[in-house]
Formats: sequence, C-alpha cells, structure tokens
Amino acid sequence: MINKAFLQYKTIKILAPATVANIVCGFDILGMAINKPADEMQITLTKNAGIVIKHIDEYNLPTKPEENVAGVALLAMLAECGEIDFGFEIIINKIIKPGSGLGSSAASSAGAVVGANYLLNNYFSKHDLVRFAMHGEKLATGVKHADNVTPCILGGITLIRSIQPLDIVEIPAPSMFVTVIHPQIEVKTADARQILRKEVSLKDAIKQWGNIAGLVAGFFKSDYDLISRSLEDVIVEPVRSILIPAFDLIKKKSIAAGALGGGISGSGPSIFMLSKDEVTAKNVEQEMKNIYDKIGVAYYTHVTTINNEGVKIEEV
Amino acid sequence: MINKAFLQYKTIKILAPATVANIVCGFDILGMAINKPADEMQITLTKNAGIVIKHIDEYNLPTKPEENVAGVALLAMLAECGEIDFGFEIIINKIIKPGSGLGSSAASSAGAVVGANYLLNNYFSKHDLVRFAMHGEKLATGVKHADNVTPCILGGITLIRSIQPLDIVEIPAPSMFVTVIHPQIEVKTADARQILRKEVSLKDAIKQWGNIAGLVAGFFKSDYDLISRSLEDVIVEPVRSILIPAFDLIKKKSIAAGALGGGISGSGPSIFMLSKDEVTAKNVEQEMKNIYDKIGVAYYTHVTTINNEGVKIEEV
Repeated sequence: MINKAFLQYKTIKILAPATVANIVCGFDILGMAINKPADEMQITLTKNAGIVIKHIDEYNLPTKPEENVAGVALLAMLAECGEIDFGFEIIINKIIKPGSGLGSSAASSAGAVVGANYLLNNYFSKHDLVRFAMHGEKLATGVKHADNVTPCILGGITLIRSIQPLDIVEIPAPSMFVTVIHPQIEVKTADARQILRKEVSLKDAIKQWGNIAGLVAGFFKSDYDLISRSLEDVIVEPVRSILIPAFDLIKKKSIAAGALGGGISGSGPSIFMLSKDEVTAKNVEQEMKNIYDKIGVAYYTHVTTINNEGVKIEEV
Repeated sequence: MINKAFLQYKTIKILAPATVANIVCGFDILGMAINKPADEMQITLTKNAGIVIKHIDEYNLPTKPEENVAGVALLAMLAECGEIDFGFEIIINKIIKPGSGLGSSAASSAGAVVGANYLLNNYFSKHDLVRFAMHGEKLATGVKHADNVTPCILGGITLIRSIQPLDIVEIPAPSMFVTVIHPQIEVKTADARQILRKEVSLKDAIKQWGNIAGLVAGFFKSDYDLISRSLEDVIVEPVRSILIPAFDLIKKKSIAAGALGGGISGSGPSIFMLSKDEVTAKNVEQEMKNIYDKIGVAYYTHVTTINNEGVKIEEV
C-alpha cells in the first residue's frame, strides 16, 4: 500500500529520451535510448483524484487520459495503487516528433510513469513501470511491445528476451555516437508490420541469429569491429527499407564515411547510424544531408550519444 | 615459409576433446568443448613426406589420408606449407564414439592439425587451424561446418557468427557441469538435416533470436537464471527430438532434477544438460539412466565440465 502520509503534492520536471528499437539484426528484441531528442514533461501530484493532461506543443494530441498514451500508462499504474484519492496533472511538451520511428509514444508513456512513480516515492519497480508503459504502446501501435519503453525507462541498450512473460536484460555497451536522420514522410507502424513476410528461410534466420549473438558479444566485449560486422539485417531491412527514400544510398555513404553500421530506427522512417567518435558521426550526418538535399526530401537530423540513465527527473 | 632448420622430428601426444554443437537455441552458431570423452592421438613429424594414419581402436575407420577426416585436414594444412619434404605419422585411439553427436570427427581433424602445427613450431594461427579442420567436417558430413572444430581447437564456448567469411567469437562463460547421455542408436547428420523445415515462421525466429541474445548475455554476465531461461529452442529441437528415444521425458526429468536446461548435442543422438554444480549433474545422470533402463535403450553417460583449453598437447 502507498503510504499517503509521506506523499508530497509537488511538481517535477521530466526529460524522456528518444529510443531506437529494432537495432538492425535485433528486430523486436533490442532497443537503446539516445540523448537527443527528448520530450519535456511537468508532472504534479494533485490532491484531487483523476488525471489531467495538457499539451504545450503543436501536435494536437488527445488529452482524454484513456485516449492518450501517457494517460493509459498512468491508468494502468493507478489500477495497481489500491484505494486512491490523489491524482496527476501532466503538461507535455513533445519534442520527439510523432511518427518519426524514435519512440515518441514510448517517451510519453515511460516519462509519465517514471515521473508519477517518483512522486509516489518509487513505490513500483522499474520492471513494473515497463509493464505500465506498454499499455501506452498498445494504444499507439496496437501491439504491447516493450522495445522502446524499456530502454527509455532503464537507459542504455536493452534486450527484451521475451514479452510474455516479460524478460528484460540490460546489455552494457561501449561509448558510441548516434547519427539520426528523420525524413519528413509518414510510415505507419502498422503498415511497416504488414509488409513483413510471415515466413523466413531457416538459412536467413540462422544468419540473423549469428549476427545477433555477435552484436550482443560485441557490446559486452566493447569490440567495435565485431559490432560493425554484426550490424547486418537479412530479414526485415531488405523489406522495410523500400518505404524509406534513398535508404541504401544513405547506408552505403554512412559506412563509407566511417560509421560502424546502422539501419531503420523502429519501423522508420528515421535512419540511425552508430559511430565510434563524434567527428565520424558528424561526417555521417553531412553525407545523409547531402543525399536528401539532392533529391529534395525535407528532414531533421540529430547527432547524439547513447543515453545511459533513461528518463531523467528534476525537482523544480 | 616454414623454417626447416628449427623442426624437431619428434613425437607428441594429443588429447582432443568432445564438443557439443548447436547449443539449444544456438543452432549452427554456438558450440562448446567438454572434458570427457576425449580422443587420444600420437603424432610424429617424419623426415619422409606423406601422411601415415593408424588406428588402435575398434572402429575400423579409413586410413587413406584422403578418406580420413584427420588426413584431409592435414592435407589442407600441407597445401599451405609451401615446398615440403617432411610428413606426419598419426596413431589414433578414438574414444569419442563416431555418430554420437559429440564431435567425434571434429576431434580427429582438430587434434591432427593442432598437433601437426605444434610440430611446425605453431606456424599457423588458430584461425587457420579451424579452416583446415573444416575440411575434415566436409568429408564427414558433407558440410564445411565449424561449430565443433572451433571449440575443439579454442576450448570454451565459441560463436561462429559467419562461415563465409569465417568469423569466430570466443564467449566467456561461468563454470558449469555437463551431463551427457548417448543412446546407442544411429542418427545420421544428413538425415537430421533433411527433416528440418526450410522455412520458419518469423514469430518463431524472433523468439529464437531473443533466446540466443539472452543466452550469450547470460554467459557474459554469469547469470545462471538467465542462461536457464534462454535455453529454449522453438525451431530445431521440436523436429529433431522425435529421432531420439524419450527425449522430452529426459529433458523434463533433468530440469526437475535441477539442470539449467539442455538439448540435443549436435545432430544427436546424444542429449546434454547443463548444471550449476556436480551433485546436480550426477542427479541428472541418474534420472537419464533410469529412463533408458526402464525402456531398454543401451547408453553411455558422461558427467564432465566445460573444457576451456581445447586440444591438449603433451611432449613424450
């Protein structure tokens, strides 16, 4: 039971990082948090029951709790709080563009539950918070997936070994820079799922799991060459990349510029590339920009690093 | 070039360990060396060119070099030695039963090339030795696979991320005991390959690569619970296990007796189980024995540990 005697009805500020799910060969199992972009939220524990959501951004997202990803994640949390007479007010300034493939909905649901839990004196475990935030993902994409909310909450690179039961493994990794380009086109997660083949050849599957084992080993060993060799997806990328303008060229030029490798972020359209150092990551950004400038695709780019702490809380 | 001035025309003794390939979810990519059983060989560098092979066991294996797995592995090695006027005599006492699924052919080819290379003052790298030994596997099974010869040469648990080009990754693991039971039935590797489906569902493939990532992470973290949870094969075992008497019952009883998990060794018919301690591994052995005694299947068992050094050389 939450001890209400110790609750402080105060306001905190939250920074909820963007996340890259489906790290190349790690489709549906590997995700990582990055430092930029990040959503800003302000959460207040209120003496009135109920959830009030406000947006101070341009996206016109729903504010009814049961229609809002942060709202449904909080509702899932409150359902396990026992008898309650308090509530939350959330003001969201969404910086991670919805539909970017950078875990925008995950940042909202993860940020909301991490912040609310802090105001409840960390009553729930991080594992619980992942469970709650997955309700937001279910609302956003129709699937209760965990590969964005988990790294958003825990930071770093995370493995979802299994969803049912939920099995989360933190994967240590060496320092890496991340270059992201977000072409201003729309790829719906549902569509990106639809075009995948339901069956794959055993040969390709074996190649993929060799790469996944290599990638995980490369992260543990801080072996950049092994990471680079293992950043290969023979199953999902060949299909999904056709939805993203100039994907093959961007990848080729990025690797020629020194990137370790990379691929589609989440279900796209953003493309991410990993590099060992910042100079390379910036060269990669320039290569990416040149290509979209040439073919006239509008875009945003980010050069950032892996976020190792997850959702960040600041007292105000 | 091999500097013949430094060669010593002497005899050494070799112990080439058995290996477990296809570690559960790691089909075609993960293998490990175990301390028992192990083949015994005696190798002499001779001043006469050519390869002479003798057997002092009961298996009546071919002795012509080009028909013998150790012979073809050595021939592949000699082909990269430049002009040569020396040769090798090998006496093999095969302890690892052919057709057991414990890397019997791999032990012959790996043992031969490691021993011969020692006599050549370690002219070749271990990576080269894996390449040579793979020729033996090609002769034995028709496929140039590396998942037995690699752990046999390097010791420990090894990942073959890719065969072409060959990419070998050593995976550190915590101490574990291994229980093996070898039912005296024949499963041909070629048959075991034949019954596999050429296509698998994407859903199963994702489950498998989640388990592989979990298993590799579990080895690195020395996390026995994670290792145990990840020892699940949803693709190959359900098909191949029907070739092995009472497989499901043996697995169930072994896990009930405390085993972390396990499965088919190589392409069978041997079954292996991993345990945290020796007492458990022996209890698992007893459970296995009871089952085969009851249904009247003849067997051999081994209770052993992971072999971390690979092929062992003794001067005589």
